[in-house]
Amino acid sequence: MDKTALFSLSYGVFFLSTKNGEKINACITNTAIQAASSPDRIAISCINTNITCMMIKMSKVFSLSILDSTCTYDLIERFGMHSARDTDKFMGLNLPVDKNGAPYLTEQACAVLTCRVVESIDLGSHTLFIAEIDDAFKVSKNPPLTYADYHAKVKPKPAAPAAGRKITGWKCKICGYYYEGENLPADFICPLCGHPASDFEPVYAE
Amino acid sequence: MDKTALFSLSYGVFFLSTKNGEKINACITNTAIQAASSPDRIAISCINTNITCMMIKMSKVFSLSILDSTCTYDLIERFGMHSARDTDKFMGLNLPVDKNGAPYLTEQACAVLTCRVVESIDLGSHTLFIAEIDDAFKVSKNPPLTYADYHAKVKPKPAAPAAGRKITGWKCKICGYYYEGENLPADFICPLCGHPASDFEPVYAE
Repeated sequence: MDKTALFSLSYGVFFLSTKNGEKINACITNTAIQAASSPDRIAISCINTNITCMMIKMSKVFSLSILDSTCTYDLIERFGMHSARDTDKFMGLNLPVDKNGAPYLTEQACAVLTCRVVESIDLGSHTLFIAEIDDAFKVSKNPPLTYADYHAKVKPKPAAPAAGRKITGWKCKICGYYYEGENLPADFICPLCGHPASDFEPVYAE
Repeated sequence: MDKTALFSLSYGVFFLSTKNGEKINACITNTAIQAASSPDRIAISCINTNITCMMIKMSKVFSLSILDSTCTYDLIERFGMHSARDTDKFMGLNLPVDKNGAPYLTEQACAVLTCRVVESIDLGSHTLFIAEIDDAFKVSKNPPLTYADYHAKVKPKPAAPAAGRKITGWKCKICGYYYEGENLPADFICPLCGHPASDFEPVYAE
């Protein structure tokens, strides 16, 4: 089985947010499809270790901002490469919120969907949420950012490892998975989130 | 609610096939995501009135050929715009089959996934299948066809209605839904399958 065949599936890129109690959070995801049309329902997949995922399980609501072609790496890095465990992702931002209190984007996004979870299916590494769409509106006329274009045009090329420092392992920037060893194979695929070697960064000896 | 906001979701285009008993069938779909990575699972959505969908509910297996940038409208029309109720979609073709007997493409496709359904969720208009991936391989190095590029580059522009003939209604080429009336609104969205007015063809008075 050639797992890289799965990289031929096409996706968009999304700012996924929720509000649970007084807490808001958001992350970046790439898996959303319209799953039915009467009523309109979407299905999204989310990594179980992700705090936004845990919060959606409790709040049962989320907002999906569909990122567009003007999206910057700064936005992806702020919401996709950090955890709310370590940082305040919303510092300095003042985002509008939907009727459930979930923040959404009016820049770098072309459309926003307000969603209510009707079914959650735990698939081990991820949870698949099926949600009814309570509201939908456009915020720009820019084309949506595809996941392929994110990789080709938005994501910076991996930096060369620092000279003279010993690499002890590699960390997946998407989910935090740790690979022990100096050399990460070029065709390595993260066993936790399915992302490729280019999404890993070196971890150096102290 | 602006339902056209849902058209900003990004998709690929797929040849979806199955074998049930001695019968094979295939259709064209655009909704597939990797839903989990340990084990590898995908989620696809399929219109309930579609024969391939009905057969997958019984066979519990399917093959997904990920269409690539060389895909022609002939292929889409043969498998996506006709029903096995009226035509033999495979006439003149001799496609290879996977271990479950489901046919797959070695041309106009870049990768093939052999899948086994582990959960089916009926969502009214559609069924969402969650499937474990038993095999995956690449068949070309061409980039996958995106649904946006299918609309912009592969799909022919709608023909002007025949002059001098009276239009009594419009039929959705994707699911067969019938709209009664001479004038289909430009922003009409099929209530059955969610496709836009450009996927409808005129129905003339006898």
